[in-house]
This record gives sequence, structure tokens and C-alpha cells, in this order.
Amino acid sequence: MLRLILIFNIVCIFFVASLTISKPGPQYPPTKGEVWPKPQQQIKEQTYFKLSPSVFKFTEKGKSCEILTNAIERYTAVLRSTHHIVWRHSKKTLKHAETRILDTNPDYKGTLEELQINLSRPCEAYPHMDMDEKYSLNVSAVSSLTSDSIWGILRGMETFAQLFYLSNGYKDVLINSTQIVDFPRYPYRGLLIDTSRHYLSVANILKTLDAMEMNKMNVLHWHIVDDQSFPYQSEKFPQLSEQGAYDPSMVYTKANINKIVKYARDRGIRVLPEFDVPGHTRSWGIAYPGILTQCYEYGKVVGLGPMDPTQNMTYKLIGDLFREVQDLFPDKYFHLGGDEVALNCWRSNPDILNFMARNNMTRTSELHAYFMTKVLRLLGQKSKPIVWQEVFYNGVALPSDAIIQVWKTIGPQDMIAALKANHKVIYSASWYLDYLSNGWHKLYKVDPRQMIPKRYKELDLNKILGGEACMWGEVVDDRNLISRVWPRSSAVAEKLWSAESPRYNNSITKELNCRMEEHTCRMNRRGVHAQPPNGPGFCVGAI
Amino acid sequence: MLRLILIFNIVCIFFVASLTISKPGPQYPPTKGEVWPKPQQQIKEQTYFKLSPSVFKFTEKGKSCEILTNAIERYTAVLRSTHHIVWRHSKKTLKHAETRILDTNPDYKGTLEELQINLSRPCEAYPHMDMDEKYSLNVSAVSSLTSDSIWGILRGMETFAQLFYLSNGYKDVLINSTQIVDFPRYPYRGLLIDTSRHYLSVANILKTLDAMEMNKMNVLHWHIVDDQSFPYQSEKFPQLSEQGAYDPSMVYTKANINKIVKYARDRGIRVLPEFDVPGHTRSWGIAYPGILTQCYEYGKVVGLGPMDPTQNMTYKLIGDLFREVQDLFPDKYFHLGGDEVALNCWRSNPDILNFMARNNMTRTSELHAYFMTKVLRLLGQKSKPIVWQEVFYNGVALPSDAIIQVWKTIGPQDMIAALKANHKVIYSASWYLDYLSNGWHKLYKVDPRQMIPKRYKELDLNKILGGEACMWGEVVDDRNLISRVWPRSSAVAEKLWSAESPRYNNSITKELNCRMEEHTCRMNRRGVHAQPPNGPGFCVGAI
Repeated sequence: MLRLILIFNIVCIFFVASLTISKPGPQYPPTKGEVWPKPQQQIKEQTYFKLSPSVFKFTEKGKSCEILTNAIERYTAVLRSTHHIVWRHSKKTLKHAETRILDTNPDYKGTLEELQINLSRPCEAYPHMDMDEKYSLNVSAVSSLTSDSIWGILRGMETFAQLFYLSNGYKDVLINSTQIVDFPRYPYRGLLIDTSRHYLSVANILKTLDAMEMNKMNVLHWHIVDDQSFPYQSEKFPQLSEQGAYDPSMVYTKANINKIVKYARDRGIRVLPEFDVPGHTRSWGIAYPGILTQCYEYGKVVGLGPMDPTQNMTYKLIGDLFREVQDLFPDKYFHLGGDEVALNCWRSNPDILNFMARNNMTRTSELHAYFMTKVLRLLGQKSKPIVWQEVFYNGVALPSDAIIQVWKTIGPQDMIAALKANHKVIYSASWYLDYLSNGWHKLYKVDPRQMIPKRYKELDLNKILGGEACMWGEVVDDRNLISRVWPRSSAVAEKLWSAESPRYNNSITKELNCRMEEHTCRMNRRGVHAQPPNGPGFCVGAI
Repeated sequence: MLRLILIFNIVCIFFVASLTISKPGPQYPPTKGEVWPKPQQQIKEQTYFKLSPSVFKFTEKGKSCEILTNAIERYTAVLRSTHHIVWRHSKKTLKHAETRILDTNPDYKGTLEELQINLSRPCEAYPHMDMDEKYSLNVSAVSSLTSDSIWGILRGMETFAQLFYLSNGYKDVLINSTQIVDFPRYPYRGLLIDTSRHYLSVANILKTLDAMEMNKMNVLHWHIVDDQSFPYQSEKFPQLSEQGAYDPSMVYTKANINKIVKYARDRGIRVLPEFDVPGHTRSWGIAYPGILTQCYEYGKVVGLGPMDPTQNMTYKLIGDLFREVQDLFPDKYFHLGGDEVALNCWRSNPDILNFMARNNMTRTSELHAYFMTKVLRLLGQKSKPIVWQEVFYNGVALPSDAIIQVWKTIGPQDMIAALKANHKVIYSASWYLDYLSNGWHKLYKVDPRQMIPKRYKELDLNKILGGEACMWGEVVDDRNLISRVWPRSSAVAEKLWSAESPRYNNSITKELNCRMEEHTCRMNRRGVHAQPPNGPGFCVGAI
């Protein structure tokens, strides 16, 4: 064993030198009990405890609610399944195993007894934009987790579960004495899924929420319908999905959505619905062609384009549908889309040109603004709007609490423009997961607030609320969703949660790679089929 | 419905014009009952039959054997599961469904009765390099499949299964009257898997063989061990995997390998083992450090490099191990590797330099040749060698039946060099699946024989035996293997099987995209989780 360690060290040093010598084993050995995303403040001591599922218990010392009791049940299962791994390996001798004789080791402090959960304020019904996710965690024989908010408790329980690691040939589950104070750097940490280009099963969306919880992400941005299909099953307008879904089996019913929203709430995750208008609406027009614009070429109709902003029935349908959606999704925000409108189709249509002339509009961007303004009003008091950046650029008079989602420019200029106009911003331009060249290292080097040059002293960087990893669905379906999203989104999750890296030093360290390796294996063990993040390696106990 | 079709056509034409109008529905609607890879000669008629599982049967009219009876059982299950899809959808009304009233349609010719299988020669025990895969298929009320070889029968049964398609709201399974004469363009159509960088489960390797059968690929090149881990469990040298595997659970036992070889044989697939020497052997050295070269820097040993070609024990171990492997793998070829040898490690070692001086060698490439020559002899009469191209370039006196695998240069020059030296060639340089930028369209544009400029009239292009899609395992494990390999490898499979496309016209047509869409859905339905190949879409009846 000594010999091996020596060779290993030599090989490590040697990599800096000129010869290329391959080494056996994983490229980045996983860390043991490191948390992802990295906590804001953490002290880890040498002393450690052992987990015994027959001894350990979660105890509620403060307020409680269904969200908390569900979480206790969930994390009890996680800790038990960790032990299942141990059981599966306990009869084997393992070369990678270190050996620690617990009883004679002065650092060993006995069996972990309990985690006391101190929630000081009543649970909120649903997570929201200003949710408090701060917690403090103290791991000791009798451990304690404290937060003012149920959302902080959820984050702390995930951290607690991640602190455990396998030892002694996977025979023991250990945890070190640790003190953590933790809170997110950005309040909005999202993942976009697209269920129009390919349908995603409810089971896979729930699995995605499991993974988001493991990464402390808190917004599922559900781009539910688009040009290609309309899987949202409306009670008011059943024809929309009957004719617009790919297949009758490929819809989301009211019961499906309720289930997803509740499942997300239990994990402290908001579900943000997007009904993108007036572009990206071709599937609406299969049942209701009258709400779409007829596009002309050489005096003839050649197809259907964006919604027709001159028709009252367009707004009637949108308004009625949105009220139904607002009742289904409890989030206070509603994503209206507003991107990539084919303005040239509007420009080709004589009726639209007449309408513009009657209303003193000269540019179609004014018509876009006209449309968005009317649709914004349809939201009423119940929801605040989020829009893709084109809506802002086309001069819509947005309410002050509207949020602009920046997706077009990798650089900071679009964020700067929105901040100057005093708007809040969500950034996603660098985090498009459909670009396969966006490996996790590349995603990890991005930090939206850091992108703003220091000379813009007048800008309030806190108005950059966070960002989103966007998994557009052109070539993604149930078969590759999870392995394509994870662990790449974990990079985004850590950048949005953890303390700021020093500017100009977003280097990828060995520590980071090894921690990512552990986190990926942890997701694998908990049933999330994340793909290998780095080079050669393996996960023990993964299914 | 008419309206919809009109709009659809208009939209199609419209794409050529200047406006961008999105259309609803899949980007490339799947074809119906088109075969992948495309048969060499096919006549499809308008008339069609219906499949009724209670009526239809396979009947053996010629020779038979276990391979054939297994295939009949397998394809019976495939046809039954197709009906299961129908059953699942039969109570729904489907918008995408066309309606054909069978009984009143003059093209409808009744229920398909049987497929008579006429195998004219006895079965061979295992597939091999010169296997005959030609078959002819005639689909009629009483259909017939004829071949001289069991391998041709297997290919024909796959084709037969692919000719069925769903109709009438997925309520009927139909097949058109068809005549096919089919045979492969290249005899070697391989897929490389790498079980050293990440371990792959036996179940996933079997699933890969299922997918290969669906694509008429005939060689599984199993790069079983490498620097990182040694999962092959040797009876003669159990220490190799006990110490060299990632984990005791991550090995391939004799029983595992027998199972894989038999499963492959039943599908007409050869299993080609690769034990790469003298480089890529770091994992061998955990148990047997003495067979590896000590690399020096500034007079000190800094690590272990390639195998030590000066030690008798190196050849003793290789010889004994290879004899064991030859007994396990029935294929007549054995892949010796020979790539990427760290010659500078050899150059740094004083004992090696002394050995070279004693043997009148001045360059380490001569030592590489010396080593490979000795190892080639160890194969004896039982196996013919396949080697990576470096072995050829380093001047090893290769036997005339040795095959050179070209992987370094995308262009034709390495193939030309090997052909000029009268060697047979396998091409894989353009087909590395670990490069994510290698989408299937890009892979599809490659044809090894077409790459050789016409002026090289003297070269025998038939010596280019075929090629391989290579799935190196650095960031691939059980979680993403299937969706990363399929359907990209299907592109390679068709290029190696089907008739040559006209030179300079390897364009990707709509027909091709739509056929690939059907083939991907077919793989999905048969349990192979291939990812979406093109843009938006969906698969009916996929699990």
C-alpha cells in the first residue's frame, strides 16, 4: 500500500514534467463528504462520528409542517439507502478502501445520535422570489440545524446528507464534526426545461426536481408550449392540446401539474410557467388558426406566423387561458416569453399594416410593444411578469417589478442596459445546455454580477437576481435529459449559490474536479443518472 | 384535415422563401417501414398486408440450428411487442393518424400468413471475417427469406421486422409487398467500447449488442483493459483484476464473457478482444510492476511507463494471458493495440538503452518493432493480429494477414500507406464518438473507400475492410453510453452496409432525416434509448 501511495505521488508530480506517464485509477478521486454547492462558511474538524440508522433520528424542536415531515421522511430514506450501499459491499475486500479502527482512534467520537431541527417561524405555503434560505448547521453527537425559514431547513438537510461519507471499505458511514453557516449568493437559481420540442414524462420532471434539490436550485422554469406542440391540457380550451399535442398520451393534465407543483414545493423549488407569446405559438394555431397572423409573400398567404395582435379574440383567449394557468401555478411570477417574434410576417400582412397606420405606428417593434402591453395587463394583480430581453429592447413600458431574462449576448451589455433602466435581471446567455461545447468547466467560469465592469458603479448589482441553465429540447427527450443536464447544471448551481470566487481567478482546481466527482457519484447513488464529469473513474454503490 | 395538409405543404414550400415561419409538429416526420441500413436492392409495391400475431408464423424450410431457433423466438417477440403498442393506443383517437379502411381498399391483400425461412447451408459456429451476410426477401401473403448462410438469414429477419409500420391510428400493423436482395458493402462494420476508463455493466453490453443487430453491425471491438483499470478477470493471473479493477464488483468473469460472446454470436456479431500492449498498460503494473518500464528523469525513477520490452517475464505473462483469452474469445482475430507508446520513457531508462545498444538498435521505434514482433509470435497460429496504425509505421514486419486500424488522420494518407504495403485496413479516424461535434450528419458523410483519390488505380480498395465507430470511455459510463452511441453509430452502420452514394454527393436529404427518425423511434420501442437525431419530434409507443 505504501508503495502504491508513493508511486501515486510521484506520478502526480511527474505530470508537471516532460514525460507522459499514465496512472492507473480514477483521474480525479472523489472527495469524501464535501458539499455541493460549497457552503458559504464551513469549519470541518478532524473528529468524526459514525452513522447507525437504528440509532440516529431527526427531531423537530421548533415549528413544523407537512413540508418538514415530508423532508424528514425523504432524508431518512437517503441515509438508509447509504447504508444499503454499505451492506452490499460489506462482504468484500476492497483495494481502494482505507482502514480506520474506529474504537481506538482518538478522533472517533462515537455514534451520531440525532439532528435537532429548529425552525423558528411558521412554514410558508410556497417558495417565492424573496424566500429565506439561510441556515446554520452544527454536526456533533447531538447535531442541530437552525433556520428562520422552512426553506433554510430544507437546504440544511441536504447539506447534512451530503456530509456523510463511506469509510473502512465502505463498511462505515462517517461524518465529521462540522459548523456551517450558509445562504445563497443569488436568490434566483433556475433550470429551464422545454416540453414542446420533445415531450418529457412527469416521472422525468420529478426526477429533475430531485436533482435540483441536491443542487439547491430553486426555480424550475417550465417552457411548456411552443411552436412544435402544445402539451398543456386546458380545461377552458381542451382543443389546444387535443389538436396541438404530439399525441393524446403526451399531455400534462391538471392532476399532473398539481403533482409537479407540490413535489417542487416540498423541495423548496418554485415552478415558473412560461406561455411564450406572440411568437413561438404555432401549435396554438392548429385549434385556433384565427389568433395567428397570416403571412404574405407576393400578395398571397404563404403560412401562419406569430399571434395576430389586431384581433380581439387573440387577447380573449390569452386572458382566459392565463387566468386558468395562474390558478394552477401558485408562483407570483409568470413568464410571458416575447422572444424571436417574426416581425417580417406582421410587415407582410395588409390588414396588420392598416391597423398600424390607423394607430400611428411606423415600426413593427411598436406593434410588438403594443401587444405585450395589452398582454401584461391581462396578468392583472395576480402575477408579476418575466420576459425575454426582446420585450425590453422593443420598448414596452414594463412595470418596475418586471424581470428581464437575458439570453442573446454572452457579454454584459444586455444586462447593463436592463439595469440602467432599473429592471431586475436573470442571466442565461452563457448557460445554454443545448450547446454541447458548454462543458461544465466552461459554465463554471461564468458569474453574472462579476461580468459587469467595475466602472459601472451606479448599477445595483443586486438587481441581477441570478440565472438559469437552459435545456432546450430540440434533441433532448426522456432518453437523454438527465445525463445531458447533470452534472453540467451543477456548475451553474454552485456559481449561483456559493461565495464569489476572486475576480479573474475562476480557475478549475483539482479540489473542484474531485468535489464534482463526488457530487456526481452522489447523484448517481440517489438515482439521478448524471454523466461522468471529468475523465476516467467510477462510482461505488451507484445504481 | 385537408386544411392542415394544405398549411403543411405551404409551410414546406415557404421554408425556401425569405420569411421564417415555424411549423407545428415534428421537424422530420418518421417514414413508415423503411429499413436502416438501406437495402442494396429493394422494390416496394403499393399492395400491403396486415399483421395478426395469432395468424402469422415463421416456418423453417431449410437447414436449422440453435442460432435460427433463437432468432425466431426473438423476432416473434419483436412482432408481438409491436402489437402491444397498437393495443395501448387502440382506445384513443389520434390526430396524427391516417385512416385506411382495409377491407375496401384494393391495395389491401389480406393477412400475412408466414415467413418461410430457407437456409440452404448448415450453420457456422461463429461469425467471422469472411461471413456471408447476403439474403433475399420476398414479402407476400406467404413470404420467403433465402440465404446460403445463417448470417444472411439473421440480417434478413431484421430487415423483415423493420418493414412493418403502424397505421389506422396505430390500430393496424401493416407491411407492403416488397422484394429485397441485400448484402453489405464492407465486411467489417464495428463498434469499439472501452471498459477501462469506466466500467460498463454486462447488461449494458448486451443492450449494445441488441442495438448493433438492429443496425447490421457485425464486430464488437472490446477495448477491455487500459491504463486506468483492468476489469478482465483472469484465471491464470487473478491478481490483475483483484488489484487492477476499480472495484471487485467491476470485473468481467469467464461466465460474463461466455454470455456476451454467445449473445453476440446469436446476433451474427463477432467479439474482438483488445489487450493493448505495450502502452496503455498501467493497470497491469499494479499487480505486476516488474513488467513495466521505470521512467527516469535527471537520473531518478519518476514513475512507471509502458511494458518493459527487455524482460522475459513481460513476454511470459503476455503469452500465458493471451492463450487464456484466445480460449475464451472464438474470433480468429486478436487486437494487440500498439498505439501511443511513451517511447521517451524507454529512452530515459539506462537498462533499456544498454539493451538497445547490445542489440544494435538506435531508435526506440526499433524497440517497439522488436517488442511487437515478439508479441505477434505469441499469438501462434490461433489468431491473426489487428493493430493500431503506429505498429505499421514503426516498421514491424507484420504478417500479410495482419490488419491495420487507422485512427490518426482524418484524410486518406494513412490508409494509402497501409494499402501500398499490401495490408488490409480498418478505418475509424472520422468516427470517434467521444468528439461531441461528430453529429450523425458529419459521420454520415464519410466513406473510407471513397476517400482514396481515383489516381491510386493500383490500390485494391477491397482491402479496406470497413470501419468502426469508437466510443472511448473517458466520460461515458452506464448512464450515458446508449444515448451517446445511438443513433450516431447508425450513420456509420449505413455507410458501411448500403450501396455507395455518388461521390461528391453525400448530402443529407429530407428522406434520410425522416428515415433516421423512424429508425431512432424503432430503437426506442425496442428498448434501446437512442437520443433524438434531428430536431423536435416524438416517438409513438416508445418506452
